Amino acid sequence: MSETRPEFGGIQAERQIERLLFDYAFHLDMNHPEELSGLFVEDCEVSYAPNFGAQGIAAYRETLNGIGSYFQATSHHVSNIAIDFVSDGEAVVRSVLLAWHRYRRERPDGWLWGQYHDIVVKIDGRWKFKRRELRTTATQDFHVKTAHPIGRAE
Amino acid sequence: MSETRPEFGGIQAERQIERLLFDYAFHLDMNHPEELSGLFVEDCEVSYAPNFGAQGIAAYRETLNGIGSYFQATSHHVSNIAIDFVSDGEAVVRSVLLAWHRYRRERPDGWLWGQYHDIVVKIDGRWKFKRRELRTTATQDFHVKTAHPIGRAE
Amino acid sequence: MSETRPEFGGIQAERQIERLLFDYAFHLDMNHPEELSGLFVEDCEVSYAPNFGAQGIAAYRETLNGIGSYFQATSHHVSNIAIDFVSDGEAVVRSVLLAWHRYRRERPDGWLWGQYHDIVVKIDGRWKFKRRELRTTATQDFHVKTAHPIGRAE
Repeated sequence: MSETRPEFGGIQAERQIERLLFDYAFHLDMNHPEELSGLFVEDCEVSYAPNFGAQGIAAYRETLNGIGSYFQATSHHVSNIAIDFVSDGEAVVRSVLLAWHRYRRERPDGWLWGQYHDIVVKIDGRWKFKRRELRTTATQDFHVKTAHPIGRAE
Repeated sequence: MSETRPEFGGIQAERQIERLLFDYAFHLDMNHPEELSGLFVEDCEVSYAPNFGAQGIAAYRETLNGIGSYFQATSHHVSNIAIDFVSDGEAVVRSVLLAWHRYRRERPDGWLWGQYHDIVVKIDGRWKFKRRELRTTATQDFHVKTAHPIGRAE
Repeated sequence: MSETRPEFGGIQAERQIERLLFDYAFHLDMNHPEELSGLFVEDCEVSYAPNFGAQGIAAYRETLNGIGSYFQATSHHVSNIAIDFVSDGEAVVRSVLLAWHRYRRERPDGWLWGQYHDIVVKIDGRWKFKRRELRTTATQDFHVKTAHPIGRAE
């Protein structure tokens, strides 16, 4: 809720954090693994699903290897960005993702509806991902069969 | 048009109003009826379609009862947010919605493309919905068969 | 990258530029050709695909003629907006588009996933499109068969 948001950060920081999320999506869709890994801190933690993620930037770089050969095209649409600052240099970020994938193999396009839950930190004047977790609302014809649930109430 | 926007409100208020829209989408997808109704003023008016809506917070709470049992999952993607302040404490807000629904019953996933047209007000330092109207651009396999049209010119 | 962004423009200008993108999408979905052309400068350049675009506002107006008769409905969802100022009066803008189309003819709905790459300029206190280029990530059942590629790395 906005009234409980601490007065850290400010709007300039929020814009820079939004830009971080958009640059991630852009470089993912462009198949730019170098630029992608540059958006994460050295000791980052990435979790796309149980047993699918990385601890540390070296491990994360390895997960990016398959993008070029596996997908013919992807499109990541990020909206509903909610930023809560923990301090001037750290924020918790929630966003909504619509991710569409066209495979190189002959198979139907894969859809994922989900949420990103991130911890971002400011290092040397620049915001980066410290932790990125994808929670999956639902999928259709998607190649990854495990997922972190969003925790929808019954 | 931006040049006609009155100088009420300011960017901090715009961010808080955007957050209101995002919290609504989040709590809807999470099936949090209590948190949802907390985003509306007591004498709110909600209209999702002709004969489908609510006058006042008590009536609105009733419309939220079926979310948990009817949908297995939903994903609400809100973008294109245009805010026009009427005063420092009131704004007219237009946004675009892509809403996707997976039902508990065996039936195809339902899509809705539409626009939210909101009136939001600042009460006790916090922005809330005073009026929320959904206008429907189009649907596919959707369970609601009536709609407010967006008024597309012929 | 955010740290290399020049300190031109400011957040108020960014909001006005976002509003320009949202007003374009709104008036396109509403079939408002007059309002659409008002968002472009006189000597604008628009390129939706090779051999599909316009040089100058008069030619652009002609491209808008078919919207009303060709589509029953469209929905343009714009997100991931990245703004880089070149000066206080000019910016380069990248955004992501999910565009959905229902045709008047009996044919499947058309989808386009893409990127807008814009040059926007401030004229008489108001931001307008100087150049708008659509790059296409992928399509499904879409009526336009040529496209500018996004340039995804192999």
